Amino acid sequence: MRKLEQVYEGKAKKVFKTDDPEKFIVDYKDDATAGNGAKKGTIHDKGIINNRVTNHLMKLLEKQGVPTHLVEEISDRETIVKKVSIIPLEVIVRNIAAGSLSKRLGLPEGTKLNKTVLEYCYKDDALGDPMINDYHIFALDIATKEELDLIAEYSFKVNEILTAYLKDLGIELIDFKLEYGKTSDGKIILADEISPDTCRFWDSKTGEKLDKDRFRRDMGGEEDAYKEILRRLIGE
Amino acid sequence: MRKLEQVYEGKAKKVFKTDDPEKFIVDYKDDATAGNGAKKGTIHDKGIINNRVTNHLMKLLEKQGVPTHLVEEISDRETIVKKVSIIPLEVIVRNIAAGSLSKRLGLPEGTKLNKTVLEYCYKDDALGDPMINDYHIFALDIATKEELDLIAEYSFKVNEILTAYLKDLGIELIDFKLEYGKTSDGKIILADEISPDTCRFWDSKTGEKLDKDRFRRDMGGEEDAYKEILRRLIGE
Repeated sequence: MRKLEQVYEGKAKKVFKTDDPEKFIVDYKDDATAGNGAKKGTIHDKGIINNRVTNHLMKLLEKQGVPTHLVEEISDRETIVKKVSIIPLEVIVRNIAAGSLSKRLGLPEGTKLNKTVLEYCYKDDALGDPMINDYHIFALDIATKEELDLIAEYSFKVNEILTAYLKDLGIELIDFKLEYGKTSDGKIILADEISPDTCRFWDSKTGEKLDKDRFRRDMGGEEDAYKEILRRLIGE
Repeated sequence: MRKLEQVYEGKAKKVFKTDDPEKFIVDYKDDATAGNGAKKGTIHDKGIINNRVTNHLMKLLEKQGVPTHLVEEISDRETIVKKVSIIPLEVIVRNIAAGSLSKRLGLPEGTKLNKTVLEYCYKDDALGDPMINDYHIFALDIATKEELDLIAEYSFKVNEILTAYLKDLGIELIDFKLEYGKTSDGKIILADEISPDTCRFWDSKTGEKLDKDRFRRDMGGEEDAYKEILRRLIGE
């Protein structure tokens, strides 16, 4: 498969066309941003780790019935994925209060939520990715009721699968962000990435943060944290 | 019925106990606030107008099958209502983009929404009444799924009834805020007020604002606007 021109460059990834009209190649960067681009930096080898962790977790999800965009990892930083148009929603799944939810609801970080919380943010940098609800999504024609029901169903299923899987590795899944895309035949599948950039992972015993919060909050140790996640998931 | 001790003082109303344990008396003030209390002032006779407008509209809703807390107007500013515990949600119903929705979604004020939008804000002054969604409501035990479904159903019905009624009076109902309460036997009923303080009313022909935005935005003419609403609804 030939890598053709770049179609998109995001904060952490580039996406390229290929000679197959239904396939893209994703190329993971080491660039890290926080606060909607206000803070910028790099995390050494992050692109390699996120590529491998994402593919590892997407394989697991695919096996258990969640359709994903994953086709094949072709290098340390590159993966062939199904071509989708991204639905402009960040779907956030929360088991434990942290980050913006703690601020919004005045709940100390680490508070166990009675019920799993789903949130939707409208992917729009100029607006600052505002939180929106089902009615906004319908009014903006972002998704239909049936599509959003499916997105919610998949997201809860991803949470169940990943929470159980990570627990066995001594990792508590606090919250995470998913994105979905639509294939050319209208099927909704999981896209984007699942990595320490997009999840809050806490060590089950010590509570140590093993994710991008170390970068966001200037805690240091982000490279070791990302490596530790790779080590626990893939053993390297 | 005897008016006993005050149980609550809000930004625009006081609530008193009575000698009937299932009844309260609401007393409407002229005080006006905006920006979660950042701006303070008074609007002459607002309490009188809001008392009368609220009762007029609640009667209309009650007749058409929406249960409300209204019992009886007993003076210019005072009304006997059913005692409820207020569910800590501001339910916002939107037909046309304005105010915080325009900011959140980048839609110019006056943009007709494809579909009616419902929003919930968590009534908590310290947190700034943040917008929340169904999942937050369940996680915080603010309402059950069944209760929230009923609140949404009533809110859409209120919108239908009021939109049609006001249209005939040359008033466009842009958006409005509702609050619900629970009676001692667990029934959910419409509470609080429905007035130029809690609705955006625009003149259907001229687009002139006939509501609290005149005060919020330092436009002036708020007293005349409130009087005009009273005149169109009740003919005084």
